[in-house]
Amino acid sequence: MRITALAGGVGGARFLRGLRRHLDSRDDGPHDLTIIANTGDDITLFGLRVSPDVDTLLYTLGGGIHEGQGWGRADETFALQGELAAYGVEPQWFGLGDRDLGTHVARSMWLAQGQSPSQVTERLAARWGLPEQRVQLLPMTDAFVETHVVVEQDDQQQAVHFQEWWIRMQAAVPAQRFVVAGLDRASAAPGVLDAIRSADVVLLPPSNPVVSIGIILLVPGVRDALRGTSAPVVGVSPIVGGGPVRGHADACLKALDVEVSPSGVASLYRDFLDGWLVDPADAASFSGPAALTVRDLPLLMKDAASTDAIAAAALDLALTLRA
Amino acid sequence: MRITALAGGVGGARFLRGLRRHLDSRDDGPHDLTIIANTGDDITLFGLRVSPDVDTLLYTLGGGIHEGQGWGRADETFALQGELAAYGVEPQWFGLGDRDLGTHVARSMWLAQGQSPSQVTERLAARWGLPEQRVQLLPMTDAFVETHVVVEQDDQQQAVHFQEWWIRMQAAVPAQRFVVAGLDRASAAPGVLDAIRSADVVLLPPSNPVVSIGIILLVPGVRDALRGTSAPVVGVSPIVGGGPVRGHADACLKALDVEVSPSGVASLYRDFLDGWLVDPADAASFSGPAALTVRDLPLLMKDAASTDAIAAAALDLALTLRA
Repeated sequence: MRITALAGGVGGARFLRGLRRHLDSRDDGPHDLTIIANTGDDITLFGLRVSPDVDTLLYTLGGGIHEGQGWGRADETFALQGELAAYGVEPQWFGLGDRDLGTHVARSMWLAQGQSPSQVTERLAARWGLPEQRVQLLPMTDAFVETHVVVEQDDQQQAVHFQEWWIRMQAAVPAQRFVVAGLDRASAAPGVLDAIRSADVVLLPPSNPVVSIGIILLVPGVRDALRGTSAPVVGVSPIVGGGPVRGHADACLKALDVEVSPSGVASLYRDFLDGWLVDPADAASFSGPAALTVRDLPLLMKDAASTDAIAAAALDLALTLRA
Repeated sequence: MRITALAGGVGGARFLRGLRRHLDSRDDGPHDLTIIANTGDDITLFGLRVSPDVDTLLYTLGGGIHEGQGWGRADETFALQGELAAYGVEPQWFGLGDRDLGTHVARSMWLAQGQSPSQVTERLAARWGLPEQRVQLLPMTDAFVETHVVVEQDDQQQAVHFQEWWIRMQAAVPAQRFVVAGLDRASAAPGVLDAIRSADVVLLPPSNPVVSIGIILLVPGVRDALRGTSAPVVGVSPIVGGGPVRGHADACLKALDVEVSPSGVASLYRDFLDGWLVDPADAASFSGPAALTVRDLPLLMKDAASTDAIAAAALDLALTLRA
């Protein structure tokens, strides 16, 4: 089976690790998993290129993630950034650990040598053992794109980098809209559109529907590929019981005037979504098109077992729809 | 008093820290110390610009040096470079600690922003408190220069970066000659020539006479400034008892067919050297021009007291020559 997933950071990575475990536990394998990662979050800090969603996927699937916080490296130290602070170098609101910085230094060096983000991601993924897991991790595009957030500050509209809004402002300043710099000149990275078109199953993990999956959908060709693929497209609601499981998806949805609910999120995917998992807490209030097949099960990824069960349910729904 | 010194790394830095302490202990102060640092050792590693002699001077004078090894930072960790190794990134023979890398990341970022090495060094020095010590640290040039070493390998002449010869090869492969890439297009950094011309005293610490001080002497204008300055020029022999106090100065001198002795080193400085400190072990065998004033005292910088005594003797000799 060839499964393709679109993913952001923490939630997507945890879901996909569960999916990978579930796939390995099945007796009809081996199965291939292609992950198309959001790179709109990418940011240049201290002259180094940081790709937070790609890194979270690498570390989570490769066994190097800080399990407690969901991002960054386990057993991390922060000596280097402390030195930058001593030199008066800003910003300091984005925490970059020494181990994590190893990834950014390698990425930046390879990019400077002329390698594409796809090629760099492949080299990084090799170290984390993704090929051996039959996982292919693709950045959504090889173009330099960055999500910026338009906010009102001091009675003026200002665009700030997504990370500044997300981390420094904690998404507490209302987003007027999101602007993805560079996306008009972008094209999908090699393999991305084909991975959607030729998949047996397409899954949308419970990643942020606006600033993670929503950004991938803006890459030219991706949305058309999702509309056109013969594979069933099944998603997992990132909204449970009226709020996001994690992060600031509510603030993102509000900026788009979309209801903070599984119904609201599903409406963003309405032109290609075939199946949708919602939490029992939201099942009664859910409303969507008749053609959308909805299943409910607990969607909190509390531990490996609950995460694997959600991944298994998403895959099962897709296989049912495919049959 | 305005004192100007030319310096390489460990030996020069330790001598100059002693000189700074001695100057502060005198009752005829305050005195200004300008240090012209060799940048021929500079190397780009992992896309980051490393300036070993400048950094050793910063850390030693600023109180951040690893006292035992003489270079690098105290309380250092090596998490980042370990990650690079895990990603298969070479070379690994040059040890870059996490704290040390903070300097290289800051330097590289500022250089990429268009600041000159002089400007970058000034920013770095501010953090290490050099201005408060009345110490000005100047790179010898703002041009991109690199010392390369011509060696014979596999019956072929090859040029390798100085650091590769010095560290990876431990200078065990005979150097045929030294080539300073970029030096023909270089000019002295702002303030360098004036610091020599207008100094009251010029000192040459016991730095490597070939690949540290010798490289600074190759910067256009520096040697002429030393010949022309009215200040006495006094040096400290880096050779004691027939060998270098530290490092591979013997291998460097042999490449130039210069005797590994205080006499040999003084011959490299003969057109501008006024005073010369040699160790008692070398006093009897020393031969040099009659115009050169030679003093002998123990030249091993074993501790702060012996280091300060050497610095004080160099300054005293200069002041005697000046009177």
